[in-house]
Amino acid sequence: MAANELSAVDAARQIAEGALSSEALVTACLARIAEREPSVSAWTHVGVEAALNEARQRDTVRPLGPLHGVPVAVKDVIDVRGMPTGMGSPIYDGFQPLADASCVSLLRAAGAVIIGKTVTAEFAGITPGSTCNPHCLNRTPGGSSSGSAAAVADNMVPIAFGTQTGGSILRPASYCGVVGFKPTYNSINRAGLKFAAESFDTIGQLSRTVEDAALFWRVLVGGAEQPFDAMPRPPRVALFRTHYWHRAKVETVEAIASTVSRLEALGCSVPEITVPQGFERLSHARKTINDYERARALSWEWHAHRGRISEPLAAVISHGLAVPYDQYVGAKTEVARWRQWFSRAMADYDVILTPAADGEAPDGLESTGSSAFQETWTMLHLPSISLPLCKGPNGLPVGVQFVGKFDRDAELLSIAQWIMKSASEVSAV
Amino acid sequence: MAANELSAVDAARQIAEGALSSEALVTACLARIAEREPSVSAWTHVGVEAALNEARQRDTVRPLGPLHGVPVAVKDVIDVRGMPTGMGSPIYDGFQPLADASCVSLLRAAGAVIIGKTVTAEFAGITPGSTCNPHCLNRTPGGSSSGSAAAVADNMVPIAFGTQTGGSILRPASYCGVVGFKPTYNSINRAGLKFAAESFDTIGQLSRTVEDAALFWRVLVGGAEQPFDAMPRPPRVALFRTHYWHRAKVETVEAIASTVSRLEALGCSVPEITVPQGFERLSHARKTINDYERARALSWEWHAHRGRISEPLAAVISHGLAVPYDQYVGAKTEVARWRQWFSRAMADYDVILTPAADGEAPDGLESTGSSAFQETWTMLHLPSISLPLCKGPNGLPVGVQFVGKFDRDAELLSIAQWIMKSASEVSAV
Repeated sequence: MAANELSAVDAARQIAEGALSSEALVTACLARIAEREPSVSAWTHVGVEAALNEARQRDTVRPLGPLHGVPVAVKDVIDVRGMPTGMGSPIYDGFQPLADASCVSLLRAAGAVIIGKTVTAEFAGITPGSTCNPHCLNRTPGGSSSGSAAAVADNMVPIAFGTQTGGSILRPASYCGVVGFKPTYNSINRAGLKFAAESFDTIGQLSRTVEDAALFWRVLVGGAEQPFDAMPRPPRVALFRTHYWHRAKVETVEAIASTVSRLEALGCSVPEITVPQGFERLSHARKTINDYERARALSWEWHAHRGRISEPLAAVISHGLAVPYDQYVGAKTEVARWRQWFSRAMADYDVILTPAADGEAPDGLESTGSSAFQETWTMLHLPSISLPLCKGPNGLPVGVQFVGKFDRDAELLSIAQWIMKSASEVSAV
Repeated sequence: MAANELSAVDAARQIAEGALSSEALVTACLARIAEREPSVSAWTHVGVEAALNEARQRDTVRPLGPLHGVPVAVKDVIDVRGMPTGMGSPIYDGFQPLADASCVSLLRAAGAVIIGKTVTAEFAGITPGSTCNPHCLNRTPGGSSSGSAAAVADNMVPIAFGTQTGGSILRPASYCGVVGFKPTYNSINRAGLKFAAESFDTIGQLSRTVEDAALFWRVLVGGAEQPFDAMPRPPRVALFRTHYWHRAKVETVEAIASTVSRLEALGCSVPEITVPQGFERLSHARKTINDYERARALSWEWHAHRGRISEPLAAVISHGLAVPYDQYVGAKTEVARWRQWFSRAMADYDVILTPAADGEAPDGLESTGSSAFQETWTMLHLPSISLPLCKGPNGLPVGVQFVGKFDRDAELLSIAQWIMKSASEVSAV
């Protein structure tokens, strides 16, 4: 296996054992980027010299932490000192933040090497950047963490930061065939993140393994020195199709069916939680909250640079400024009610099985796809993970989403690890 | 009344009517600053020429919004384009943010003139800045919104942004004898605010009237065009002394007693909500959450500039980095439980009466005082307001705090207006 194909966990282990240098690893990633970036266009900035220098420094010292020497990519709405932070908008061309974001600094302190910034949709919204799906270049990688998903899927880097306000980690993870993990809301510190809609904005990650997601998360919240392993028993799984099930394409319907079969073969029963009446109101509430908050978060950009804001985003902001405060509060109240409902509905289960996306990555680059199957879980503040378990009719990846309980991220990750291990055993049979 | 003594509402009205120019108002405020700043030390930056230019521009156009031509001060942890943002830390000496914070941009769009930046304790924490209490220069103004409270109290500016993570708006409001308003958590957009502890950080304001607090809040959240008035009936008030009542000095005990008497004279009965068993656990949870989150929010500063962080803050960060994630989650769960408890306890009341601070501003400038009587409400995410209703044994201000229901800020403000109106009628009798 080429060094750039290693997981973060394996790379860190080899570096700690002296079997691999950080410089060799970063060099291999940079070579992969040089080869593939003209096609994939995942990056807004690659800090070639800075990353190599940092890698060489790492090679001269004892491990700083569990990510020592491992390159990491950062979505371009998160501040990195010494690199431009462009927010996917011409308004921020050449902007250089003073400080690292909290999450970047914590990763560096654990030994990670920040290799560059990845393409984001405009302000982590819906207007796409330049990235193509590495599995099929005329299809979208999904968004808004487009570059992070594509770079990880294409073995340019083992792990990358993403953010999710609607479906911006899980959808590109599903479309690009990688592991996308959105932790519980507010568990990863957001200092240094450009806000989109503050009530939903969640920092997370894209990687090729669940173990990497677990390491990443534990470095950021604490406890990375403790061992991580799969749940020792089959999890109690419930299926929840959401009110958007009619939007699932055939490959998503099949992905859910085949996952249920596999779980049943492994000894899980998979009962279904019926979508409750009125659940679709959550999606109306989402638009109200999203637009109201985005309009305010981007107030300076709107008033000082309106001409450099895309039409779709301008429509969101115009709507958001017109939303009455009482309507916004009503929408927040509605969402809070469903959070409580879900907490009760999940009481007898460890995890929810639900679609990760509507299907394979759609054709074309003018849209990043629909957030229908991701946004519910962002709003409910629940940790969720997309696992690259299935393929669609064009041989392209189709993820499957698992949703954990509030603030029980470690449990969700160990369940995800159990599923990946068990799934590979089933398919090996 | 000199122009610099006008409230924001009165100043905006006179400007809209052509009875006052923004230039004259800003000039009067600048003159007051020039006269008093050598004693009070409330400002880190006064944008004399920029503010005058902006005022003159305001005078040539039709009103942009309800704060047209009114000068506003901004606590120095909130970004203002064109001014340095120092965070109360030498690490940020000379730092110039690219963009206005959301709240600053929204105020400018309503016509406000940003006159300068006010002194904050280091990163909105506990290590004081240079500001003195304008009522008694060898006493603290309170913190961390020290400069904002002192500047408003001293008639340098009618209204100023503050932020509250523990007690950073209400305490200086009480100590300086002004109105301090901390809205419901997350109601004022935090884009462009330097985070301290994200689960508690709340943007609010200091002013000399409740009407100004109401106008400020409605400009930021929407609905400023609607009329604002006092509640048309006596509010249903309950007294809640908190688990810190033993820390109340005699003047605070008397302030609560005299407020109860006044309310009773106005026809309110004021029953007491008993402090429930275990309520003091909230304060332990606060330290856990505060330190855990501050340590992460300041990760870059900690790793790149440890020598420029004060000893008290370094102790907070060291502790925060050592807090296990499970303990942090446990603390958040504890706080969430009390939020629900309080929501039930308040069901039959409109508002809670509680101390704003332990007493008059303490002697000396080496501490900004105790957050005991403010922090509960920040943690519970409830809107709260300090009203300058009383005096202590040294003739210094003692505020009284009123706490409203979650997301019912407009109601709290109209109750506060009823109290101020009624209190002045009672004292006039």
